[in-house]
Amino acid sequence: MTVQLDSVTQQIATITKAARTAQKTLGRASRAEKDAALAVMAEAIDANRAAILEANAKDLQRGQENNTADALLDRLQLTDERIDGLVSALGELASLPDPIGNVLRGNNLPNGIRMQQIRVPLGVVGAIYEARPNVTVDIAGIGIKSGNAVILRGGSAAETTNGVTISVLRDALEANGLPADLIQGIDELGRDGANALMTYRGGVDVLIPRGGPGLIRTVVEQAAVPVIETGAGVGHVFVDASADPQKAVDVVFNSKTHRPSVCNAAETVLIHKDAKETGVNVLNTLQSSGVLLHVDPTAATWVTDAVAATEEDWATEYLDMEMSVKIVDDIAEAIEHVEMYSTGHTEVILTENLSNAERYIAEVDAAVVMINASSRFTDGGQFGLGAEIGISTQKLHARGPMGLEELTSTKWILRGDGQIRH
Amino acid sequence: MTVQLDSVTQQIATITKAARTAQKTLGRASRAEKDAALAVMAEAIDANRAAILEANAKDLQRGQENNTADALLDRLQLTDERIDGLVSALGELASLPDPIGNVLRGNNLPNGIRMQQIRVPLGVVGAIYEARPNVTVDIAGIGIKSGNAVILRGGSAAETTNGVTISVLRDALEANGLPADLIQGIDELGRDGANALMTYRGGVDVLIPRGGPGLIRTVVEQAAVPVIETGAGVGHVFVDASADPQKAVDVVFNSKTHRPSVCNAAETVLIHKDAKETGVNVLNTLQSSGVLLHVDPTAATWVTDAVAATEEDWATEYLDMEMSVKIVDDIAEAIEHVEMYSTGHTEVILTENLSNAERYIAEVDAAVVMINASSRFTDGGQFGLGAEIGISTQKLHARGPMGLEELTSTKWILRGDGQIRH
Repeated sequence: MTVQLDSVTQQIATITKAARTAQKTLGRASRAEKDAALAVMAEAIDANRAAILEANAKDLQRGQENNTADALLDRLQLTDERIDGLVSALGELASLPDPIGNVLRGNNLPNGIRMQQIRVPLGVVGAIYEARPNVTVDIAGIGIKSGNAVILRGGSAAETTNGVTISVLRDALEANGLPADLIQGIDELGRDGANALMTYRGGVDVLIPRGGPGLIRTVVEQAAVPVIETGAGVGHVFVDASADPQKAVDVVFNSKTHRPSVCNAAETVLIHKDAKETGVNVLNTLQSSGVLLHVDPTAATWVTDAVAATEEDWATEYLDMEMSVKIVDDIAEAIEHVEMYSTGHTEVILTENLSNAERYIAEVDAAVVMINASSRFTDGGQFGLGAEIGISTQKLHARGPMGLEELTSTKWILRGDGQIRH
Repeated sequence: MTVQLDSVTQQIATITKAARTAQKTLGRASRAEKDAALAVMAEAIDANRAAILEANAKDLQRGQENNTADALLDRLQLTDERIDGLVSALGELASLPDPIGNVLRGNNLPNGIRMQQIRVPLGVVGAIYEARPNVTVDIAGIGIKSGNAVILRGGSAAETTNGVTISVLRDALEANGLPADLIQGIDELGRDGANALMTYRGGVDVLIPRGGPGLIRTVVEQAAVPVIETGAGVGHVFVDASADPQKAVDVVFNSKTHRPSVCNAAETVLIHKDAKETGVNVLNTLQSSGVLLHVDPTAATWVTDAVAATEEDWATEYLDMEMSVKIVDDIAEAIEHVEMYSTGHTEVILTENLSNAERYIAEVDAAVVMINASSRFTDGGQFGLGAEIGISTQKLHARGPMGLEELTSTKWILRGDGQIRH
C-alpha cells in the first residue's frame, strides 16, 4: 500500500516538474503568442468535436450503466452547442487584456533604488473537479492566458472525454510552439493521484477544487498545498420591513429560481415580521412555480403546503427548487442568522432604508453583499471579469468571482546602482 | 489523550469565538478610534515597562537555567531601549493610513448596478512565534490598525513576558472602549493549544508562523487553517562577469554581514568564472571580517582557509557568518542553481549588462529580485510599507514584505434597484 502510494506521488512529482519546466517557456511568451495559442486551441476543439463527442458518449453510457443521477449526467454531457460555447470562450479569452507584467505599485526609495511590484503567473495550477468536461477547456484556457501550467483531475466519470480533450489541447499547444506539458491530466492515476496532488508539497502552487460541498471539504481538509476554496453557497435574501414589494418578489424569485443548481442561487429567505403582505406574496410566488418551502413556525401561519424547517435546513445548500424561510423580528436577527449559517458567498438585502442598507453592507461578512439585486449577479461574466475560474468563499488571496488576475502572484523588482544598507 | 486534546480544542473554539465577536466592534471603529487605541497601547507599554522587564528577567533566568543558546537569549531579552522601540512603533502605526474601506476596483454594470470592491479586515489573525516578546507588541499593534483580532502563541520561553505584555495591552484596549478580547494569548495552553489553533477550522482566518525553518515547516505541514509562510531565506547574490568590482564587494559584503541572523541576509554567492579578480576580492573581504566560506572545487583554488561545500550547504540557511560559494560558467548556470536551492525570498544580481539584468528579473522566481542592491533591503520599513508582520515566501495572497494591506481581505458591494438576471 505504502509502495503503491509512493509510486503515485513519484508520478505526481514528475508531472508537476514537467509542468514547471513548461511554464517557464510560457512565462516568457508575449501576449500575442499566448493569444495565438488560445486561437489554435479554439480551432482544435472545433475541428475535433466529433472525437470529443464520441468520447463523451462513452462516458455517458458508462454513467447510465452505473445508474448515475440525471443532474450529474446532464453536467457530464457535451453537445454541439456546448462545444460551440467552449470554442467561443477560448476566443473571448484571447481578447481579454493580459494581466502579466501589470505594475501594481512602485516608487523610488529614498536611496535611489527604483522599486516596482508586478504581476507574475502563479506557476502551476491544479484543479480537481467532477464530471464537468467543460471545466477542462475553461481552466486550460484561463491557465494559458494567465501564464500558468495546469494539472487537471476531472474525475473518473468524465475521464474518456477529458482524455481526448486534453490530447487535442496539447497538440494545439505544440502546433503553436508551446510545450504540451502546460496542460496535463491525471485521471488515469485515480484517487491516489488526486490525493498525491493534494499532498505533494512543491508540486502545484495552488489547488482549486470545483464541485459539490463534499469534494471541496475533502480537498480543503486533506491538502498540504495551498488551496482556494470555491463555491460553497448557502446564501440568504433578507426582505426588510421597508422593502419595495415588487422588487422583493422579483429579486427573491430570481435569486432562487433563475438557476437553482448553482452556488449563487439563494437558499434561504429571511422576512421582516412587519413585511407580512410582501412576504406572503414572495412565498406564494415561489410556491406557484414549484419551490418547496421549509418554513419556521411563524411562516407556517403565512402559507400552506410547506414543510417545517429543521435545524439542518438552515445550513443546507439545496441546489434545487427548495428554500428555507424564516420570519425575523428585526435586521439584527437577520444579521445574526446570516452570521450563523452563511457560507460567505453572496448575501442580499431588500430595503428602501438607507441606514439598514449601510448596516448590512458593514456587518455582513461575505464575498459579495448586495442591496436590491439578485444573488445571481455574483459571477465573473456579470462582473465584467471576462473569465471565471470559480467563486472564492475564502478570505485569503481571492474573494468572490476569480478571473485572470486571481491566478497571478506578484514579484517585487528593485533596480539599484550598488546601494547597501547602513 | 483524545479527551485532553478535545478539551484544548474546545478552549481554542471559545477563544477564537470571543475574538470574532470582539472583531465586529473593531470592524466598525473609525480610523480615529483605532489610532487612539494604539496611542493608549503605546502609553501603557511605556508606563508598565518595569513590570514587563521584571517578567522578562524571569524568562531569561529560566532560559539560562535551561542552557538556552545565547542567540535565543538575545532575542528573548527586552531592554529599556527595545521597549522604547516598541512604544515608538505603536506610535508610527497610528500615523499610517488606514487600509480598511479603500476602494480597489469599481464601476457601473451595464444594468445599472453600482459595483465596488473594498478592503475589509481578515477577521481573526493567529500568530505562532518563538521567544520574541517584541513580536507580541508588533502583531497586536498591526492587528488593531488593520481591524483584526489577534491570537498570539509566543512560546514557552517567553511566556511570562508575553503574559504581562498582553495583559497591559488588553487593559489599554478596554480603557479605550474596545473589547480586551481583540488581543488574546494562548501560551498557557502549551503545545496542544498551538496544535489546536493550527487545526481548528473556523477559528482563525489566517495563521502566520514567525520563526526558524523548523517552526514554519511544522505549521505549514500541520495546519488545516490558511497559513502564510514567512521568512525562509536561502538567498543568493550572483556576481556576473560584467559586475562593477566595487559594487560587487560592497553589495555581497553588506548582504551577508550587515545582520547575518535574519532572513534577508544572503547565504550563497555565485560568481561568474570570468569575474575572478572581483570574485577573489569579494571572498577575501568576507573572510577578513570573519565569514567562514563553504566553497566549490573551483573557488577552493581562489582562496585558502575555506571548507569544502557539501550538497547540504547549498540548501542551508546559515543565519550566521558563513556563506556558500560557487563559481558558475554563465548566467544560465547561476539561474539553474538559484532555481534548485532558493527559497524564493530575495535574489540579487550584480551586473552592468542590460540583457542579463532583464533576464534575471524575468527568469528568477522569488518574492524580490534585485539588480545591484543589497538583499538587506527586503524589509517592510525599507519598502516604505510602514509596518511589517513578516516576509511572505509563498505566492498566494501576499509575496514579500507584508504590511497592513496584506492583513486585509476584500468585499464586493453591489447596489442595485431591483435588478434581476435574465
